[in-house]
Amino acid sequence: MIRHIVMFTWTEDATAEQKEAVAAELGKLPGVIPQIRALTLGGDAGINQGNHDFALVADFDDVEGYLAYRDHPRHQAVIAEHIRPILAARAAAQLKV
Amino acid sequence: MIRHIVMFTWTEDATAEQKEAVAAELGKLPGVIPQIRALTLGGDAGINQGNHDFALVADFDDVEGYLAYRDHPRHQAVIAEHIRPILAARAAAQLKV
Repeated sequence: MIRHIVMFTWTEDATAEQKEAVAAELGKLPGVIPQIRALTLGGDAGINQGNHDFALVADFDDVEGYLAYRDHPRHQAVIAEHIRPILAARAAAQLKV
Repeated sequence: MIRHIVMFTWTEDATAEQKEAVAAELGKLPGVIPQIRALTLGGDAGINQGNHDFALVADFDDVEGYLAYRDHPRHQAVIAEHIRPILAARAAAQLKV
């Protein structure tokens, strides 16, 4: 299995509406990209300071499945239209589990 | 459920032995801290550039379970003895799922 993990910190002027749109649009991707086996996403719970604002964990059967997601036009559209306009910082890793 | 996610980038002079010790010591924690319901960890798969070097995803029933892990002396010892000496950058978030 490949577990893809990514976190975002939003710009200071990002609105609640813009942040909610990221979660909503990413949440639609399992209906569009069948290679996604599991998807967890959401805003940071606010337990600790210094955290990123948003995180996503997505599981795939293999590297090919992850790449199908990474490069899918619908995913790329969410990145271009919803994520990049409010992105201040990004952290990512993919684990072979 | 609380899903805790953390990523590390290691210092350039970190040895393979030191990196492996982090994974090995964190991997022992489910045997010591029963609040950990699931644990995934490992080195970045090397698919993409600009990633962190290591990631960990840990699931807990609730915030109290996560805090028991976060503040557990054995976890704190792993951080102090194995992680901090080779830590260049850290990214974290906790999600309420």
